[in-house]
Amino acid sequence: MKIAVLGTGMVGDAIASKLIQLGHEVMMGSRTANNEKAWAWVSQSGPNASQGTFNDAAKFGDIVFNCTNGMGTMEALRQATAEHLNGKILIDISNPLDFSKGMPPSLFVCNTDSLAEQIQREFPETKVVKTLNTINCNVMVNPSLVPGEHDVFVSGNDADAKTKVKEIMKSFGWQNIVDLGDITTARAAEMWVFIWVRLWGFVGHPNFNLHIAKA
Amino acid sequence: MKIAVLGTGMVGDAIASKLIQLGHEVMMGSRTANNEKAWAWVSQSGPNASQGTFNDAAKFGDIVFNCTNGMGTMEALRQATAEHLNGKILIDISNPLDFSKGMPPSLFVCNTDSLAEQIQREFPETKVVKTLNTINCNVMVNPSLVPGEHDVFVSGNDADAKTKVKEIMKSFGWQNIVDLGDITTARAAEMWVFIWVRLWGFVGHPNFNLHIAKA
Repeated sequence: MKIAVLGTGMVGDAIASKLIQLGHEVMMGSRTANNEKAWAWVSQSGPNASQGTFNDAAKFGDIVFNCTNGMGTMEALRQATAEHLNGKILIDISNPLDFSKGMPPSLFVCNTDSLAEQIQREFPETKVVKTLNTINCNVMVNPSLVPGEHDVFVSGNDADAKTKVKEIMKSFGWQNIVDLGDITTARAAEMWVFIWVRLWGFVGHPNFNLHIAKA
Repeated sequence: MKIAVLGTGMVGDAIASKLIQLGHEVMMGSRTANNEKAWAWVSQSGPNASQGTFNDAAKFGDIVFNCTNGMGTMEALRQATAEHLNGKILIDISNPLDFSKGMPPSLFVCNTDSLAEQIQREFPETKVVKTLNTINCNVMVNPSLVPGEHDVFVSGNDADAKTKVKEIMKSFGWQNIVDLGDITTARAAEMWVFIWVRLWGFVGHPNFNLHIAKA
């Protein structure tokens, strides 16, 4: 599959590398073409890897992963343009973390709205699926880093899109996928990250995840 | 121990009954003395059970459980009075759920503040410990209803108070107690409830809880 990965940070790098490993053609997008990190990634990732602007990548991909920083997400997607996002699945991994008020971060949107909903409202013809934002990027693409059963959320309005996204997640190794419901349930997935940041200190490392234990 | 339980709903009933079962003297408090539910509880709970106003109960208890509805918590504690709460441990189980905007509920405070912090600010001489708000009341007092490992959070500024609260929780059957930190971390515990409400639909019943799976 041709897949765009928007974002050149740790999340973008982890997702793009995993997709290459799984045999996909991947273009990494950033604000400017020939971004240093994107080039570094391409140079070590073989012939199926390429890079360009957010716009180039969105045009290239049949599916688009949003791995940008939450603060920069809307602007990145505007550069990707509705023209290139319409009709496509956008897998949104971003988090609305606000570091401007000190550490640990708060959220710049939550409770009665979410970043995923903001994206869905601005790009109504795009099938936004929120997932994978609740874990560290190493665990995202290698869930077995955390032993035992643990779960990942999926939120989105389009059932077929969620089915396709779940297939990709299964190819990453995910077994327990909790479909929370429509895109408004992304509020829950994003609010988990507020908790995650505080648990990080308790656990002492980022290789942990939540599990829903049930009777 | 002499313990006050503020609130006559399902949470108050579950906590008060468990405390009686464990041999404590318990006074259930409500807005008015001789509340119908409080009387019903007393009549079936034996000689260690009594009831009165929030004020009566707070005066009686060496430790106070806040099991009131989040919307009514501040008013209930004002009726309990700082005089009777000063110097005591207040175990806050309430949740800032706002049902006024329809279902599922949102939170009336979150992210940059919490109900537990509002309580701590208004009653600075009280040792507020947030805990047990993240699970259904049946699981609160009987964690083995959920099989396998699962966790409960504790937040509070006073280390000795948290130690005492953990002892009570252990007497309820809790084994995995995650001390998140000071009272500001109650934001995380309260935000979990937003997620909990949405998971309820996924799980299909309320006997579930989160577990932090870790490497």
